[in-house]
Amino acid sequence: MKSKKSTSALLLIGGGADAVDVRYASGFSAPDPFLFVRRGEEDFLLVSALEMGRALKLGPAISCVTPDALELPPNARRDLGRQAAAFLEKMGCKKALVSPRCPIGVVRRMEKSGLRVKVLKDPVFAERAVKDPAEIRALRQAQRATAHAMKTAMGLIAGAEIGGDGDLILDGAPLTSERVRYLVSVGLLEKQFHAEEIIVAGGDQGTDPHERGTGPLRAGELIVLDIFPRSEVTGYWGDMTRTVIRGRPSAAQRKQYRTVLAAQKAALARVAPGVTGAEIHQTVCDVFAEAGYETDRVDGVPQGFIHSTGHGVGLEIHEGPSVSPAGGPLQAGQVITIEPGLYYPGVGGVRIEDTVVVTEEGCSLLATCPKRFVL
Amino acid sequence: MKSKKSTSALLLIGGGADAVDVRYASGFSAPDPFLFVRRGEEDFLLVSALEMGRALKLGPAISCVTPDALELPPNARRDLGRQAAAFLEKMGCKKALVSPRCPIGVVRRMEKSGLRVKVLKDPVFAERAVKDPAEIRALRQAQRATAHAMKTAMGLIAGAEIGGDGDLILDGAPLTSERVRYLVSVGLLEKQFHAEEIIVAGGDQGTDPHERGTGPLRAGELIVLDIFPRSEVTGYWGDMTRTVIRGRPSAAQRKQYRTVLAAQKAALARVAPGVTGAEIHQTVCDVFAEAGYETDRVDGVPQGFIHSTGHGVGLEIHEGPSVSPAGGPLQAGQVITIEPGLYYPGVGGVRIEDTVVVTEEGCSLLATCPKRFVL
Repeated sequence: MKSKKSTSALLLIGGGADAVDVRYASGFSAPDPFLFVRRGEEDFLLVSALEMGRALKLGPAISCVTPDALELPPNARRDLGRQAAAFLEKMGCKKALVSPRCPIGVVRRMEKSGLRVKVLKDPVFAERAVKDPAEIRALRQAQRATAHAMKTAMGLIAGAEIGGDGDLILDGAPLTSERVRYLVSVGLLEKQFHAEEIIVAGGDQGTDPHERGTGPLRAGELIVLDIFPRSEVTGYWGDMTRTVIRGRPSAAQRKQYRTVLAAQKAALARVAPGVTGAEIHQTVCDVFAEAGYETDRVDGVPQGFIHSTGHGVGLEIHEGPSVSPAGGPLQAGQVITIEPGLYYPGVGGVRIEDTVVVTEEGCSLLATCPKRFVL
Repeated sequence: MKSKKSTSALLLIGGGADAVDVRYASGFSAPDPFLFVRRGEEDFLLVSALEMGRALKLGPAISCVTPDALELPPNARRDLGRQAAAFLEKMGCKKALVSPRCPIGVVRRMEKSGLRVKVLKDPVFAERAVKDPAEIRALRQAQRATAHAMKTAMGLIAGAEIGGDGDLILDGAPLTSERVRYLVSVGLLEKQFHAEEIIVAGGDQGTDPHERGTGPLRAGELIVLDIFPRSEVTGYWGDMTRTVIRGRPSAAQRKQYRTVLAAQKAALARVAPGVTGAEIHQTVCDVFAEAGYETDRVDGVPQGFIHSTGHGVGLEIHEGPSVSPAGGPLQAGQVITIEPGLYYPGVGGVRIEDTVVVTEEGCSLLATCPKRFVL
């Protein structure tokens, strides 16, 4: 306890800037911001009296303290910076290590109280990128729920009739993006998964990868279905995309779909420990280039392959490692998406995405879902 | 443009630390972090090419720029601090004003690039606390959806049978906290509202104000129903709590309910411009004290009136002004909750909450919902 180490402590803000890191390190999350402190092998949670009951259930490995014990003046009791300074002083720490996500207001307050603050690099817990067996189980459960939801979405589109004007009709009413999103969300909710941002984007809406989609779905249009729910129990995410069409695709739509599918297959085949995210991304670019698809900007609007190939999935929907030009070597146990896409206004958007775990030999899908194109 | 003012600019992080402030100032939100800059009367959004289409729809009042235009080296293109430094330099600004929520990593990077950084006080936009007519409409719509959801929850509990062991049974299956939460969420989803944290907490679960509740609901137990959904269209929240009981309440339960109801009435009657949040909170404390209810800690667990009387509601579920010992004078147009509660293990929890807008004369409920206790 007299070692040099003991005069500095890692300080993270749970329920706020560092919510996910704190959940990872402690298993604890709460709606309002609170402090997590790690000094050497000792972990502490500074939580309000309201959270104490839940915090104590974590067991003896984490010491739980309420800020009341710090004897701060009443106007400073809810000030995380003052709490941190008072607690670290009590512990004999002179230096706080914080994540780059720590709010500047908290840092300035700590510095004013005489603490030195060192900013760590992101990610604070690099080990988060490699999942342990319990995390893989949670991710697999999430991805299975996602696949089930995807089949629901596909079933709705497949079961719709095509109206005289080309709009899809289900049970006498137009099948809209909103309606598919609602019905898919309900199925997920029943399994205790939340999906606020499901994408059901038809036609040119699907050429903007962040457009969620609105209005009636139509025959002959590419429909991008991107579902990424989070388990309210475990906090882990699933992530899957399929692209479908109702009715007869044009030659351009068919070629674009086949090319993205081939790119995804090629990328999945490359995934293995030691292979870099950059190499996998390049594999996708090569398939697209060979098929004659170019990425550029037309009237300021980007088109072609306009995002990266994939990202890590865990307690955050987007986390390390990156499968992009900046992506380093993969490791076994990492969980990543492989989601190439092509977007051309006038034709539509195609994206096909699966989430895989990197294995010693290559990779393995966390859940399967048919890649049906023409419904 | 050569004024002193033009050498400093407000810099906020949308989609991240300052997401809500940026949505308030610009009307724009996006899933990934981006920069918002205000210099004098000019507003700028620095958004990725993917978001450009949506950003341009905001109209000519906001200039939209992609970080590509900043000619950063490839490894710095996604670095918000580098983007900010490069953009402000291009604008001739030497000083960035940031919110206290700005991540320290971004601040350090800007400072390294030679910018001076001044940290503003929270809230950056104090005017957010006073709602304009469009905001009141959005909040009223949210609160109406909340009231409708509350009636659904009450109807489920009222419609349940009481099984031999006291468990509530609906349509042959136990009526659990999870089932009520699911059915209420589905109704909200249909109206495009998300409610991830609905509380349906019976018996001693209800004595922890942050416990969401699990397992079968039972006759003779106080059940706290706290519903706070967010509109996926407007981004505004509703917030309402009722406490109910199925079957016959004990004398202690009945007295506790009546006392909280009286406290809420007394607090609502005090709300008016110029009255402080502290005074309203004290009104609640006085009612509880007169009825003999004490707030203290038993075996480390707080009991009695263990939270503040209310908070502002808007684009955040908890925002200014505060209705607590720290609360200042209210203003017309502010939207606040009034939610006294009493929590005693062995008896249960009672909380009654409405959301009101402060008017010139007093206050007005944003939506009504019966206060039925015995169902």
